[in-house]
Amino acid sequence: MPESSSQPPRLPKAVSQRLSLYLRFLEGLESGHRDTVSSSQLARALGLTAAQVRRDLAYFGQFGFPGVGYKVPNLVREIRRILGTDRTWQVALVGAGNLGTALLRYRGFRKQGFEIGAVFDADPKLEGKAIAGIPIRSVRDLPKVVRESSIKIAILAVPAEAANDAAKKCVEAGVRGILNFAPVRLSVPESVIVHPVDLALQLEQLAFRMRLEGKEARALP
Amino acid sequence: MPESSSQPPRLPKAVSQRLSLYLRFLEGLESGHRDTVSSSQLARALGLTAAQVRRDLAYFGQFGFPGVGYKVPNLVREIRRILGTDRTWQVALVGAGNLGTALLRYRGFRKQGFEIGAVFDADPKLEGKAIAGIPIRSVRDLPKVVRESSIKIAILAVPAEAANDAAKKCVEAGVRGILNFAPVRLSVPESVIVHPVDLALQLEQLAFRMRLEGKEARALP
Repeated sequence: MPESSSQPPRLPKAVSQRLSLYLRFLEGLESGHRDTVSSSQLARALGLTAAQVRRDLAYFGQFGFPGVGYKVPNLVREIRRILGTDRTWQVALVGAGNLGTALLRYRGFRKQGFEIGAVFDADPKLEGKAIAGIPIRSVRDLPKVVRESSIKIAILAVPAEAANDAAKKCVEAGVRGILNFAPVRLSVPESVIVHPVDLALQLEQLAFRMRLEGKEARALP
Repeated sequence: MPESSSQPPRLPKAVSQRLSLYLRFLEGLESGHRDTVSSSQLARALGLTAAQVRRDLAYFGQFGFPGVGYKVPNLVREIRRILGTDRTWQVALVGAGNLGTALLRYRGFRKQGFEIGAVFDADPKLEGKAIAGIPIRSVRDLPKVVRESSIKIAILAVPAEAANDAAKKCVEAGVRGILNFAPVRLSVPESVIVHPVDLALQLEQLAFRMRLEGKEARALP
């Protein structure tokens, strides 16, 4: 039961990101056949305080048991339900170049409830070939296939100059969420969620943390 | 000048992530020859409040000018300095498969101050070939090359089972930060920063935001 069911709490983005991290750690515990976990154990594993962990999870309801902590399988199930990954999402991949191929071969997606069910590329030479058992189709077939399979999520792994056209095609066919690897801002209707993956940003964050680590005893900057 | 120079403020991870996002937006303004920007404009662009923007930037010093806002080139320079990307970092890439190749061809890294200067792969068949003009070397050469070039950052784009061995080699050769695409937890000394890139997590976050969007008028979950 939500703690404040009369007023929907506005969920900070940082909390939603931590939910995925909690889930990863809990899945590890589950594979190790651990039944319970305390907020302090979760906190230690993720570099947070126990109070923060309790506050995060309280956004969604009361999962803890006094003196026991959280029941691991329970919490895994609840977080998956909250994230919406307690079902399998069919995903369309646009772009079967190096990045697209790497994404197709990536085993982590299916484990987390995502299945790439259709792959499209603009290059006629790739048409009919298969990667990881999935045939590559022409982008011309995208509208029909995405609509008929009711696919709601697309991954764009195309060059920047092709991204907006691909996004438009996807949205017209019913896609409501786009994971965008192309280094360009997409123009889509407001109802469509775009989650950009900025690989340079990841390196930037790493460099920043290295910089902080090197001067941990001193004041910033 | 930091606002509290006597006590180094502990920087929340969310703030450091937003710095990269501020930077992206500001770089866009700079290309458009915009000279100044207000905290409310920054806030609107990033979906934050103006107070939040001012608080974020105040972690690092006083950059704003009353009645003017922030000077764009100034703020770009300052954020780059804070992030440590006002210099070019040499980066070693381990793994020249599909993902590694995609990363090598990715144009965004160099723009943000990262240059992949050496590429390694365990497959002898790849040795001597070149991707984007950079020759692929044997992982056996990694210790020597990384040490001689004083490379401090490595990107691991290898299968999970090869990741820990690659990380160990890198660290022994002087690497202090690792961007890890392999879906496995790395065992490295505490002084080494590991930034994992979990691609399934990105999809999970997208699905979650789609779920929230679909029920924005109702309470969570």
